[in-house]
Amino acid sequence: MTETANSTQEQEVRKLIDSWLQAVATCDTDRIMSHYAQDVCAFDAIGPLRFDSAESYGRHWAQCMEHCQPPMEFVLSELQLTVSGDLACGHFLNRCKGTDKEGNEHAMWMRGTAHYRKRDGQWKIVHEHFSAPFDPMSGKTCFDLKP
Amino acid sequence: MTETANSTQEQEVRKLIDSWLQAVATCDTDRIMSHYAQDVCAFDAIGPLRFDSAESYGRHWAQCMEHCQPPMEFVLSELQLTVSGDLACGHFLNRCKGTDKEGNEHAMWMRGTAHYRKRDGQWKIVHEHFSAPFDPMSGKTCFDLKP
Repeated sequence: MTETANSTQEQEVRKLIDSWLQAVATCDTDRIMSHYAQDVCAFDAIGPLRFDSAESYGRHWAQCMEHCQPPMEFVLSELQLTVSGDLACGHFLNRCKGTDKEGNEHAMWMRGTAHYRKRDGQWKIVHEHFSAPFDPMSGKTCFDLKP
Repeated sequence: MTETANSTQEQEVRKLIDSWLQAVATCDTDRIMSHYAQDVCAFDAIGPLRFDSAESYGRHWAQCMEHCQPPMEFVLSELQLTVSGDLACGHFLNRCKGTDKEGNEHAMWMRGTAHYRKRDGQWKIVHEHFSAPFDPMSGKTCFDLKP
C-alpha cells in the first residue's frame, strides 16, 4: 500500500466520518444507520454491554433519538486516524450536545473509538465504542470532564 | 497482503494479547507497560478522559495496582481481531476479577477495544479503550451486566 493510496483511503474514511456527523445532527435514525455495516459490533455509553448487529444498534439509536430534537451536535476533537489497506481505525474525544423534548440542553465530553472496513468499494463503520469514565469511589459517571 | 501473511500477523497479535494478559495477572506495572507503544493513547474506565503517553498511562496503571494483589484476572470473551499489514484492531468483552489489599474480591464485565501497530518488527498496543455503560436515569455505572 503506497502512501498516496493510503492518503486517498484516509480521505474516504474522513468523508464517511463527516457524513456520519451530519446524519447524527439530523437525529434521523435511517440516515445515521446507513453508515454502519450490517454486522457492526457496538459498545455504547448506555444500554447493554454490546450490540452485535445493525438491527439491534439501530433500535437503540431510534430509542435515544426519541428523547432528542435536532440538531444533535457531535464535535470531534483530537481525532487520530490510521488506515492500512481496507481497514481503518480511529479514536477521538466527542463533545456531545443535544436538546431534549422539553427544551433542556445537555452537553458532555465522551471518548469514541471506531473501526472502519472497505467492502465492495464502500467504507462502513464495523465497530464503535463510546464511553465516559466513572468515579471508582461513588460509581457515578464523570459528566463534567474536559480535555 | 496475502491471507497467509495476515494469518501470521494475526498469530503475532494474539501472542501480544496473551502476553499482556499474563502481565496483568502479575500486577507488575513495568511488565504490563512493556506491551504499550510510547505514544499510546488510552481511554480508561476510570480517571481522566484520556492518557496520551506510556508515561502518564503507566503512572495510572501503577496507582490502580496499588489497590490490588495478584492475580488480577482479565478473561476475554467474544474477541474479534482484524489485521491489515502492520495495523490490527480488536474488541472484546472482559471479565475483570481482582482482590483488594483487604482481601475483598471484585468482579465485573467491561468492554475493551484496542489498536495494535507493528513497528521495527514489534507489535505494540497504540490505543486502548475500556468502559462499562452507565444508567442514563441515575448516572450510575452498570457493574452487574452480563453478556
